[in-house]
Amino acid sequence: MSDTRSKFVEVYSVLKSELLNDSAYEWTDDSRQWVERMLEYNVPGGKLNRGLSVVDSYKLLVEGKELTNDEFFLASTLGWCIEWLQAYFLVLDDIMDNSHTRRGQPCWFRVPKVGLIAVNDGILLRNHIPRILRKHFREKRYYVDLLDLFNEVEFQTASGQMIDLITTLEGEKDLSKYSLPIHRRIVQYKTAYYSFYLPVACALLVAGEKLDDHVDVKNILIDMGIYFQVQDDYLDCFGEPGFIGKIGTDIEDFKCSWVVVKALELCNDEQKKFLSENYGKDDPACVAKVKELYKELNLQGVFSDYESQSYEKLNKSIEAHPSKSIQAVLKSFLGKIYKRQK
Amino acid sequence: MSDTRSKFVEVYSVLKSELLNDSAYEWTDDSRQWVERMLEYNVPGGKLNRGLSVVDSYKLLVEGKELTNDEFFLASTLGWCIEWLQAYFLVLDDIMDNSHTRRGQPCWFRVPKVGLIAVNDGILLRNHIPRILRKHFREKRYYVDLLDLFNEVEFQTASGQMIDLITTLEGEKDLSKYSLPIHRRIVQYKTAYYSFYLPVACALLVAGEKLDDHVDVKNILIDMGIYFQVQDDYLDCFGEPGFIGKIGTDIEDFKCSWVVVKALELCNDEQKKFLSENYGKDDPACVAKVKELYKELNLQGVFSDYESQSYEKLNKSIEAHPSKSIQAVLKSFLGKIYKRQK
Repeated sequence: MSDTRSKFVEVYSVLKSELLNDSAYEWTDDSRQWVERMLEYNVPGGKLNRGLSVVDSYKLLVEGKELTNDEFFLASTLGWCIEWLQAYFLVLDDIMDNSHTRRGQPCWFRVPKVGLIAVNDGILLRNHIPRILRKHFREKRYYVDLLDLFNEVEFQTASGQMIDLITTLEGEKDLSKYSLPIHRRIVQYKTAYYSFYLPVACALLVAGEKLDDHVDVKNILIDMGIYFQVQDDYLDCFGEPGFIGKIGTDIEDFKCSWVVVKALELCNDEQKKFLSENYGKDDPACVAKVKELYKELNLQGVFSDYESQSYEKLNKSIEAHPSKSIQAVLKSFLGKIYKRQK
Repeated sequence: MSDTRSKFVEVYSVLKSELLNDSAYEWTDDSRQWVERMLEYNVPGGKLNRGLSVVDSYKLLVEGKELTNDEFFLASTLGWCIEWLQAYFLVLDDIMDNSHTRRGQPCWFRVPKVGLIAVNDGILLRNHIPRILRKHFREKRYYVDLLDLFNEVEFQTASGQMIDLITTLEGEKDLSKYSLPIHRRIVQYKTAYYSFYLPVACALLVAGEKLDDHVDVKNILIDMGIYFQVQDDYLDCFGEPGFIGKIGTDIEDFKCSWVVVKALELCNDEQKKFLSENYGKDDPACVAKVKELYKELNLQGVFSDYESQSYEKLNKSIEAHPSKSIQAVLKSFLGKIYKRQK
């Protein structure tokens, strides 16, 4: 484990122990045990990309100046708030999607004795964020901006989740409800704001910047987030299961994926009918037929073009930015995702 | 409808329409329709006691001075934020409790096509609160205090819900896990903060007060909230169904009600065994046996004593408060609940 990562993980233990002793609540042994187990199960077990990227971005913003312990702790704390936010979304999404596993273990609501108490646990995870922010940022000039930021991004994510849920509801009756603009809107709101914009926005605030001065940075990060999700959709269908660590089921699940949306755009009427008949079925033969059609339409080539065009466009926007340190932050994000295989 | 109530209800329409045009999200017709229907179904249909009490309290705090339109609007907006908070809790609680009806109609998650999308709708309701606060209070001196207040109270409510859920889980194995201190803790956190403290705290902030100067007011309101919930538990068992508008099922549902907790306190070993055998069963004969035991233990008399003692104690605390206008606020709350039959 890199030094940054292990120091970052240490911050989690501090935050957890503060939450388990929060004086706004009179704890019982039972409730403290419950929350501790729930946190351990849901918060620290991910890849931590979002959380770590707050620390990395902050370092780049202060141009390689060694961080004090205090600065490292503050940036990490905001990184963990994003991990908490992610845990909250995942716990509830898994209930809504009736999922089985997450990060290689049963979804939290499937753990014996948990069940739908998981709904309230999701709420608790969400409520921990303002507790953490208040404890560590109450006296900072940017405290209110942090609260506004987390509130706005959570609202956008929930709105993206809503449009995803109702689009899937409609799409199951009529596949042609799926379109590129709808797909863009879903991934922009559901994923890009909290995964790409939020980490950098947190780093900017700690560095003393005003977010209103960085609308251009936001726009670039949102575009990057959309590109990231298109890759995700592509890998779900065409990636190596051994590499990406799971077997994609977007076709079976009738997902409004970039792949099907692009296919619909390129289909003739006959192919569209064929796609409608086979998309969203649990039968492996249907899945194979859909994949065959994707090959006929050369979706791998279409994706490859999309990928290089997105990269070029993003790179150009980044290089047009007046600040070298902000360029470095954005390039670091782009470098991590360009041509990723997992 | 009183003039205040109808003016209060008008404010809801303004807030709803602002939310449906919130520029932090690119709306589609489908998503706007979904949110509008969801709001109409879940937000305005309650008794509005909590929301209206912000307006009433604020009027008393400014000692009967006629409110300007702007002042009325601000107090009402905070009242509606509490109604939104309540809607959010109820939508999710009904899912967790697998309930059937709420306010005389099917629970939102039972409406066709809604299902578990209701989890995300609950989240959206919650996210509307900071959107409303930001739009109308961003420039107020007390904006950050409002955000902190809503965050703290939501955290306390979710913590109360957690202890209720895990206590019921434990209690089903062993009724003796239910006790008066546990009951107090559940109702204090789950109900009292948001139903009693939050409306007055909102009114105090709009009136320019600092909440740190009013810890005594908070404590009185929390005690009043506990007394209110004890009444609720009592009425669930002994109230007139025609009067309270529903048929109580706390006995069938194995609830950690004040009534059963008090019964356990007064039981001998034999009675405790009898209670354990019959509590939490769906069978009407078992329910009747539990009620018979309650009569044997004279729980109606015990409640009546509790009621007059609570009233006296609360009244004394209120009269000890130095401010006449705050006394008026607290007396108004107490007057509304003392010896209520529904």
